[in-house]
Amino acid sequence: MDAKQIVVLGASVIASSLCGHAITDGALDPYVRVAEIEVDPAQLEVYKTAAKEIIENSVRLEPGVLALYSVSDIDNPARVTVFEIYADKDAYKAHLETPHFRKYKAVTQDMVKSLKLRDALPIAISAKSK
Amino acid sequence: MDAKQIVVLGASVIASSLCGHAITDGALDPYVRVAEIEVDPAQLEVYKTAAKEIIENSVRLEPGVLALYSVSDIDNPARVTVFEIYADKDAYKAHLETPHFRKYKAVTQDMVKSLKLRDALPIAISAKSK
Repeated sequence: MDAKQIVVLGASVIASSLCGHAITDGALDPYVRVAEIEVDPAQLEVYKTAAKEIIENSVRLEPGVLALYSVSDIDNPARVTVFEIYADKDAYKAHLETPHFRKYKAVTQDMVKSLKLRDALPIAISAKSK
Repeated sequence: MDAKQIVVLGASVIASSLCGHAITDGALDPYVRVAEIEVDPAQLEVYKTAAKEIIENSVRLEPGVLALYSVSDIDNPARVTVFEIYADKDAYKAHLETPHFRKYKAVTQDMVKSLKLRDALPIAISAKSK
């Protein structure tokens, strides 16, 4: 085995333990919520651009934002469901104070016709290691 | 830098690329659905055990099951929402034929009072690298 092979082997072992199976592995008390959003159909494409931006920025910049999944119903694309996992409730509160969240709220306030938020507790949260 | 340091450095680089930010990175056409399940409150704890088992087995054993997140509403714990991401529709069809899925359906059929399934398209699917 040469040095390169050692690196790759070591990397595979460490990567598999780093990636894990549960996004919430490191979170003692994850704060989970489901958001149901009804978007103005005429503004859906603009809304989707704003949603992509806030989600990518939040997961990249905020240590406590573990996962944000936003999807649009196939039968009713203006119905958007967002699955949100934060490390804890403080991480969620901090998220609300970020410039990118404030920008998202300002940009989308006239696009969102209704917003229902439901707090939830995980039963099982499992995602593929890569 | 000694060999051990090289392995750790290599691992970090490869792990960060392997873990990535999007569970759907490798999926060309992910199949996403949101399931809304109303469980018999008297059987909720037994249901949760069955749900944990099917979710962990599916993500561990099936290459095409990318993520399964099941959560219970805090205000109404018998209301369960499942966020499901498969590599594609064939992966979902294969999932329905597995012994663990069949067992879950058989075990929970008298616990599930209603089941609504909504097909969805991702707007943004982003989770923390570990």
